[in-house]
Amino acid sequence: MEIEDWRRKIDELDEQLVALISKRAEAAKAIGLAKRDKQLPVYEPKREQDVFTHVKSINPGPLDDLELLHIYERLMDVMRTLQRRDI
Amino acid sequence: MEIEDWRRKIDELDEQLVALISKRAEAAKAIGLAKRDKQLPVYEPKREQDVFTHVKSINPGPLDDLELLHIYERLMDVMRTLQRRDI
Repeated sequence: MEIEDWRRKIDELDEQLVALISKRAEAAKAIGLAKRDKQLPVYEPKREQDVFTHVKSINPGPLDDLELLHIYERLMDVMRTLQRRDI
Repeated sequence: MEIEDWRRKIDELDEQLVALISKRAEAAKAIGLAKRDKQLPVYEPKREQDVFTHVKSINPGPLDDLELLHIYERLMDVMRTLQRRDI
């Protein structure tokens, strides 16, 4: 496959990725509202650690675990910001 | 739905997300190899801009464009690192 073909493939993957990230954000938002109702803190380090452990356990490569976690750290930062702004 | 139900939903979404991010990384790796063969630079600002424009154009919310791009900037950083280490 040529570079242009791979890029078309990446564009398709990005469409699926944006849809999934958005679904994850909707779920995080729902959790943020539930936390507000129950007066629980937005930041829960134990839960974040569980997410990182889960993500590492299902990493098929070619990214190594640290690279994948690097992406997830940013993802979790943004989700936390969303939970704070929507409550 | 309770917080625990949303968390199970998020765990399922993470499984799909990790699979997609990994597919995207495989495609980026293939492009990295093709660039090496053609002696093209790894960093192509025009293409990165196109990716950001595409991502914004398909953003359904609830994240705003800047939040989504914040995640994508990290994703692109990591993909560039992968292209550099595998050539």
